[in-house]
Parts: sequence; structure tokens; C-alpha cells
Amino acid sequence: MELAEHLSEFTQRDWQTVTDPDDRIRFALIGLGWFTEGAVIPALAESALCEVGTVVSGDRNKAARVRDEAGADRALTYDEFHAGEGRSNYDAVYIATPNATHLDFVESAADFGKAVLCEKPIAATTTHAERIAEACNDAGVMLMVGYRMHTNPAVRRMRELVSEGFVGDPVLVEGGMCQNVFEMISPDPNQWRLDADLAGGSALIDLGIYPLNTARFVLDTDPVSAQGTTTSSDDRFTEVDQHVSFEVEFEDGITAACVASQYAQQGSHFTVIGTDGRLTLDPAFFGEAQLAVRRGGAEADFSVEPVNEVAEEFDYFADRLLSGRDPVPDGEHALVDMRAIEAIYESAETGERELIKG
Amino acid sequence: MELAEHLSEFTQRDWQTVTDPDDRIRFALIGLGWFTEGAVIPALAESALCEVGTVVSGDRNKAARVRDEAGADRALTYDEFHAGEGRSNYDAVYIATPNATHLDFVESAADFGKAVLCEKPIAATTTHAERIAEACNDAGVMLMVGYRMHTNPAVRRMRELVSEGFVGDPVLVEGGMCQNVFEMISPDPNQWRLDADLAGGSALIDLGIYPLNTARFVLDTDPVSAQGTTTSSDDRFTEVDQHVSFEVEFEDGITAACVASQYAQQGSHFTVIGTDGRLTLDPAFFGEAQLAVRRGGAEADFSVEPVNEVAEEFDYFADRLLSGRDPVPDGEHALVDMRAIEAIYESAETGERELIKG
Repeated sequence: MELAEHLSEFTQRDWQTVTDPDDRIRFALIGLGWFTEGAVIPALAESALCEVGTVVSGDRNKAARVRDEAGADRALTYDEFHAGEGRSNYDAVYIATPNATHLDFVESAADFGKAVLCEKPIAATTTHAERIAEACNDAGVMLMVGYRMHTNPAVRRMRELVSEGFVGDPVLVEGGMCQNVFEMISPDPNQWRLDADLAGGSALIDLGIYPLNTARFVLDTDPVSAQGTTTSSDDRFTEVDQHVSFEVEFEDGITAACVASQYAQQGSHFTVIGTDGRLTLDPAFFGEAQLAVRRGGAEADFSVEPVNEVAEEFDYFADRLLSGRDPVPDGEHALVDMRAIEAIYESAETGERELIKG
Repeated sequence: MELAEHLSEFTQRDWQTVTDPDDRIRFALIGLGWFTEGAVIPALAESALCEVGTVVSGDRNKAARVRDEAGADRALTYDEFHAGEGRSNYDAVYIATPNATHLDFVESAADFGKAVLCEKPIAATTTHAERIAEACNDAGVMLMVGYRMHTNPAVRRMRELVSEGFVGDPVLVEGGMCQNVFEMISPDPNQWRLDADLAGGSALIDLGIYPLNTARFVLDTDPVSAQGTTTSSDDRFTEVDQHVSFEVEFEDGITAACVASQYAQQGSHFTVIGTDGRLTLDPAFFGEAQLAVRRGGAEADFSVEPVNEVAEEFDYFADRLLSGRDPVPDGEHALVDMRAIEAIYESAETGERELIKG
């Protein structure tokens, strides 16, 4: 394996098959929170494969304001969306509402025959996740879950290096993902991310999912058992886990030790340790691309110009839809994470290593 | 708290009370393996507080060779040591034999009224560790266990920063310690570190103890429960754990997620995550001193000239002995690690979170 070969075109879109479509995929963006407004709309403005068609919010005035600012064709309320209004104005939906509400929007979109890009986690519960996968499957619409790590160039190069044996046999994984939700997202102590019913949990389901899913993607393996401990040290986290540390055992005897926090100093990293080498992303999950590569006594650090991770994710979705190929992070893929997360939350209660149902 | 104040004299020996003793502490070095020969003897050659008095080996010829090379007064076999020969030539013993054999040497040293510096782990089993602590206690001799992290200046600065609130409330710890034992120590597949009876385990007891103990020291807290998973992927690890991932819950609700490997690409790191800041040592446990400090949006990296960690450890021991002060890593301190390690090995068998007996 040639390291230079893998890294010389670090940010290339090795997945892209469509570059200049006759028509771009027009999205209905459902849920106009900080991420949709601050990250998705700007990303789509520079996309050659996607555009904003419609914006959908629970708040009619907000929808109208965002429509005007984003240059969208149409603004809808949630009720209008569910009633099927204006559905000729979009080809696909992007769902970024509270986790527990994803299912309703997916079911409507599937009824309308629209492809679905659903934010991670796919749902607040495994049961909902199963129904989401089933609804899209039954309707024959494409479903992708928004794991932006899959199109992060540094993660993709890491995956190639592992698959070609650069680290020897991978044996251990370390990962962490921490943010300060009150600074990053909202100071509101009543925000949905702190509500057990709406979110399904917090540190683990919202942030621990990053190292968990990245381990699955980079190592091309699935988890078989897991255990974890959830804690909260702040009064605002009465219903959900503020912090989590967890361990996952994967199919090939590889184990991972991870931490995540919804309210702590921001930081992220992801390391694969093998018998002959070691690959680290730090920061890993905040859009940058810094890859440290070690093998034997040699080491190198690659720091490349960051890509727009959201543009990569949406364009990958559009590319799959336009070319008729299946996306890697589909409903079945997301279900495995949900089962692992459920097992870890269960372990935090029982104190036992829990098997992850297949 | 002033960051500059803590870091401006980064490598100062803030523990030192004796600088120019009338007589240096003369050691009997017991067990002349790679570490004693390659690290301890060179460290003592530059010490103002310690010197080599006697060298002790199971191999008479080796003892004689090392005596001549180190300029020691005397060479003894293990039997001669136990018989008390030449005991007027040393004030203290340093024990670096296989873990399961520490107890015998400690018992003889205690009988002779000599202070003991015992390598970590203190023993291969908790039972032996208890007897070691008891033997020294009963004889009234000082016992210190060789946790060189305690006198690593970067670890000490990290500890000060945490105790003065630099990271806010500490909430999570991440740590890892991996080496390739066949390159680092010996290619011999029959070496004692791979023998369950002599070593008591491998990845966890020999290497996982670094992040575990450093977490206790830096956070000034003790573990209450733990869980872990041990794996082996190489034929040479039939009796002992090649790799381990484990989680520890501490007294204040802080949790740690750690990995260790006895045969994987070398690497070490240690991170404390708090509500307001984050401190990372990387590398952490191989003698270097690199500390990354983050708080809010600010970050700084401190990379200072490495100190001789072994000289620091021996001089700390000598300073405690000469001044009559108790060392922090004494027998009771080491016993807590042994109980945690025993709990993690038990958890790897049972799949359950195990309480750590107090």
C-alpha cells in the first residue's frame, strides 16, 4: 500500500458518479433549527446537485422568513406538509426535527414517494427506527441517514488505509465527542435535546453515535455487545444522560472505548490502533480534517483544507438518488446503531454487558 | 488561577525538600532486566540523592558483569540477598523482578529494615499486594511503588490545574497505553510478561494501570466500580490479555474509558475533560512531556524538554526517605489499583460491572 497514493488526493469525491445533472434534487427542508439554517442552507447554495425547493416549520412566520432568505419556492407548516401541499415543488425531504418526530415526517414523505435524508440519530427509539426503515422500504423510496462522517475525506482515507492493512490487524478503537450544548446550540434549559421523550437520550444517542458509527464504517464491522455508564452532573440534565462512557465489542474481537458529553468542553477524536500502526483524527467530528498516521517508528500528520461536510453529505445523497445506487448509511445501517445505543442504555441500568440484537 | 504561573516552571521539582544530603541513599537493585540496566542505572549515575550500592540477579555472572559496568560495590545472587549477605552495603532495595516474585524480596528487605521501592504493579495478585503492604508496615520500613507518572512534571502540572478548577468540574477521562512488547522489551515468546502466574495478566495489569493510576492521581479520587473486556489476537497471548478496553467509575461520578495493549503500535495519551476545559497529554507515558490545554475557545500546547522520569522517581523516593515524609504511592495506594484491576479482570469474565472493594 502506498501512503502517498491514498493521501495525495485527500479531498477527492471518490464516491461521485454524477457531476452535471439535468435537474438538481430539490429538497423540502423540514425543521428550521440552528443546523438547517446555519449549515444546510449555506451548503445547498453552493451545491451543483441539490437545491432548496421548500422550507417547512412548525412556525408559519419562521418558514416564510427562511423561505425569503434562502430563496426557496415555498414555505409550509408541518400540517401543510403532512397534507401534501406543494409536493410537486420538491424531490426529496431532509428531516431535522426532534428525534421522536422523525417517523411522522418519514411516513408522509414515503406516502408522497419522496426520497428521505433523515438526520442522525434516525429516531428516539429502535421501534421508531424500524418503522422508518419499513415505511421507506414499502414505498420504494430511498432512505439515507445523515452520518456526515461517511463523506468526510479524512474518515474515508482512514477507512482505505485500514482496509488495505496499513495498521496491520486493527485491535482497539478510541473515540470521544463532547460539546457544550448550551453554547453550541441553545442556552434554553427546555430545549428538546434535554427531553427524554423527544430526544431518546442525550450524550450517547446524539454524540456517542459519532465514534460508534465511525468505528463501524472505518472497520467495516458491526457491534456484538456493549456496556456503558451514564452520568449527569448538572441540574439541567434530569431526564437524559449528560455524559457517557461506553465500551463496544465488534464482530472481529475489536473493542472500542468511548466517551461523549452533551455539556463539557468541546473536543472530538477517533483513533484506530492496530498491531502495526495507528491512525488518529483529532479533531474528528467538527468538520476539520486532521489525520495523524503512525506505523512503526514513522509518523506523519496530515492537515488539509476543511471541506464543507454538509455539502458533501447532501451531494452524496443526490448522487445516490440520481444514479440509482444505494447509500451506505441506509435504514438498516442506522438500525444497528440504534440497537447498540439501546444496549448501552440498558447496560447503564443493569450493570451488565448487553448483547446487541441482530 | 494563572496558567502562566503553573507552567512557567514546568519541570521544577515542587516535591523536593532535600538537595544536598550528607550521604546518598545506596540501593540494592534486584532484578537486572532491560529496565534496570537501560534506565535505572543510568538515572542513578546522575542523581545527587541516590547511588547504586549492590546489584542482585538470579544469574551470578550477570550480577558480576552489571556490578562492574555500574561501578557497584557488590554483586549478589537472589539466594545471597535473601540470606542477608552484604546488607550493610545498601539502605534501600529497588525490586524489578517478575510481579509474582516481588513479595519474597519485600519480605526479606523488610526483615533487614530496608526501605522498599517496588516496581508497578506492586504484585501479580491482590493477596500478595496486601502482604507486601503489611510486611513493610509491620517492619516500619518505607514502601513506595514505582508509579513514575507521579513525578512526571506534565502530570503534576495537569493535577494542579485540575485541582484549581481550570477545567471546571472534571467529568470524563480518556486514557490509552499501548506498546509492542516484542520490540520494546524482548522478542522471546516465553518471557515472564506473557506468563499468567508470574505476571498476573498483561495488557491491563502492566499497561492499563498507567491511565487508571494517573486518573486517580490527577483527579485525587478513587474508583468505585469498573468493567472491561479483554481480548487476544496473537498466538503468543494464550494465557494473558493482549488487549483490554475498560471503564472505571470514580467516587465523584467521574467516569473513564481506557484501552491498553501489550502488542500493538506504540502510543499513549491521557485526557481529562471538564465542563469548562480539557487537558491532554499525548504522548503521556513514555517519558515525554507534552500537554495540550483548552478552555473555552482558547488552546495552547506545551512541549517541554523531557526530564529523566526514572531519576525523578528515585530522587522522590530518596527525598521522602531522607526527610521522613510519606510517599504518595505507598502500599495502600497501590492496593487500590490492584483491587480495580482484579475487578476489571473479573468483569471480563462475568460481563458485569464489578464493585471495587474498599
